Amino acid sequence: MDKKEQALQKHFEWKGKIQIQSRVPVSNSEELSLAYTPGVAQPCIAISKDKSLSFELTRRHNLVAVVTDGTAVLGLGDIGPEASMPVMEGKCALLREFGQVDAFPLCIRSKDVDEIVRTVYLISSSFGGINLEDISAPRCFEIEKKLKELCDIPVFHDDQHGTAIVVGAALLNALKVTNKHISQIRCVISGAGAAGIAIGKHLLRMGVKNLILCDRFGILTKDMKNLNPAHKEMSLCTNPENLQGTLEDALVGSHVFIGVSAPHIVSKEMISTMAKESIVFPMANPVPEIDPALAKEGGALIVGTGRSDYPNQINNVLAFPGIFRGALDVRARDINDQMKLAASHAIASLVSHKELSKDYILPKAFDKRVGPAVAKAVAKAARESHVAKL
Amino acid sequence: MDKKEQALQKHFEWKGKIQIQSRVPVSNSEELSLAYTPGVAQPCIAISKDKSLSFELTRRHNLVAVVTDGTAVLGLGDIGPEASMPVMEGKCALLREFGQVDAFPLCIRSKDVDEIVRTVYLISSSFGGINLEDISAPRCFEIEKKLKELCDIPVFHDDQHGTAIVVGAALLNALKVTNKHISQIRCVISGAGAAGIAIGKHLLRMGVKNLILCDRFGILTKDMKNLNPAHKEMSLCTNPENLQGTLEDALVGSHVFIGVSAPHIVSKEMISTMAKESIVFPMANPVPEIDPALAKEGGALIVGTGRSDYPNQINNVLAFPGIFRGALDVRARDINDQMKLAASHAIASLVSHKELSKDYILPKAFDKRVGPAVAKAVAKAARESHVAKL
Repeated sequence: MDKKEQALQKHFEWKGKIQIQSRVPVSNSEELSLAYTPGVAQPCIAISKDKSLSFELTRRHNLVAVVTDGTAVLGLGDIGPEASMPVMEGKCALLREFGQVDAFPLCIRSKDVDEIVRTVYLISSSFGGINLEDISAPRCFEIEKKLKELCDIPVFHDDQHGTAIVVGAALLNALKVTNKHISQIRCVISGAGAAGIAIGKHLLRMGVKNLILCDRFGILTKDMKNLNPAHKEMSLCTNPENLQGTLEDALVGSHVFIGVSAPHIVSKEMISTMAKESIVFPMANPVPEIDPALAKEGGALIVGTGRSDYPNQINNVLAFPGIFRGALDVRARDINDQMKLAASHAIASLVSHKELSKDYILPKAFDKRVGPAVAKAVAKAARESHVAKL
Repeated sequence: MDKKEQALQKHFEWKGKIQIQSRVPVSNSEELSLAYTPGVAQPCIAISKDKSLSFELTRRHNLVAVVTDGTAVLGLGDIGPEASMPVMEGKCALLREFGQVDAFPLCIRSKDVDEIVRTVYLISSSFGGINLEDISAPRCFEIEKKLKELCDIPVFHDDQHGTAIVVGAALLNALKVTNKHISQIRCVISGAGAAGIAIGKHLLRMGVKNLILCDRFGILTKDMKNLNPAHKEMSLCTNPENLQGTLEDALVGSHVFIGVSAPHIVSKEMISTMAKESIVFPMANPVPEIDPALAKEGGALIVGTGRSDYPNQINNVLAFPGIFRGALDVRARDINDQMKLAASHAIASLVSHKELSKDYILPKAFDKRVGPAVAKAVAKAARESHVAKL
């Protein structure tokens, strides 16, 4: 049986990757009367007098909704709400295993931005946080922005920020290996969708000065017409040399390539035009922009992909469980830039100077130290940036 | 510490009455690649080709949403969505413990019927069933009706039908004790809200011929003006003798009293005007329409209440876990009248002829036989009435 068949078979056996347990005993009349009627009236009355007690008297303090509309699932595109659920359940299982978070998957049967926003807002009192997942760009930007304004619990679009945080961590350590300073590199991102734009913003905040964003239209420039608002914004803070042309042109002399675009769009020859000891993260999933072996042949010193069967897997699971754990621990009302930066540094710091090498720039996805380390750093940053309620 | 303080204290200790667990191992790269990327793409693709596979490849087949808007919580009224959550979590814990159902609580921040309907509909692909809870009448009727039309998964308003099913079971066994036939009794229901109307309809289906519904307006009659649609409908199938007057008038000569109204509105004297060996179920919570001891002094032979500290507790927990278990087991697209009737008979049948007495007409709320027995009967009725997909 090949890997694909095995994965499908396993899903038939599992019959769901999450389940809901009771935390209370209800095996006799006394116990029933405490957990249910008439005793349950007391926490209800207490919360009706002080809504913030919903974080102490119910599971809300540890509950995150993993929400999708099924429009941008993995590399599969718009496969609909039902078909997106295996990914959402997987995410929930990982939030539990690596972050001790209670996460629940919800798929929404609508593609209308305002309807999705309204639906999530209306159920948000049931949760302590919202993780948006696999929603297509540019709708995802608007949905996230509107929900952040409406809700007083953290809203986090993992495809954007989770990816950006882990790429940031990978870059920090890759730069240590190559002895370069973040302010001195030219960094090319291929793919100006949700992930590419979020990575770009995050790297700028981390100190990258020379960032170039490419998409089907080639290198993003200030003078392009008909840009969507997200691209317009990025055009103003990237490409300081005002380069024109294609991805191929952008790569000449660049130090870093980050791909969140499409399979096989980068050749060995293109890599060979980059600066020496280049850092190449072709992360298109499941087939990267360039095969890691080819990238190395082209001269790349450090290669990282989204895949677990190559070294340096750049996997969101390093970020999102600890991010939510940290945010929930201090009841943060937002997951802000400071918290995201802290997460990148926390992940990077788990690879010691001694261990660090071109084939080991990130901790493994299943490294149990990562969640707690990220959580601690994120909670600290939340407190220092005054978004923590505890 | 009194019982109320103890219940509040316990809720602070529990920090939520449910939690979410992973059902899959994710402790190494191989396991991660099956449960999450890239393996998870396979079940996604399979469901995108055949939506019904969402019941086999995700937890949907066992998942019920427990949904409220917080407008009619216990006897507390409209205390809002956050404050209703301890009840919803309790319900979820009971669905797990007595029905092995994965149930998740959702409170909705809206009181608008259409908005609530739309919200629940939009998230319904994530679930195998919807349990509506603590939504005020008459809104609850409209919400349930519209959702039943929109959704192809069962929608069940427990405050109506769960209560009706258990009252039906209690009445079946009480009639055995008193040697009366259901077609020959006159039955008075006090409280023409969601529960009272549902009980009335259920008893009519069970064979009660002479049913009288009372509320603040007195005995419901056909010639009353300005009735809401639910009351109008009930006026046409109740009160065959066309009695006029108050609850007090209705009780004279009646065999059964069922109260889902308000504390202390029935006196010993009123009970004494009923037929001999009357059956009295004062179920207002937490304080019944008449104290059970007083009802007995007034001449009642069998008394049942909602409380666990008196004999014959009439508790919804006897019904809803088995109802959903049975519906999910055969993937019923509805919970119809046949299934509800089957549930009443299944509950009643668990009290053997030998055990049956005036103080033991129903199994105990924590009797582990009840859930499976109800589930079996409900599944059978679903198949026989052609709403089962399995």
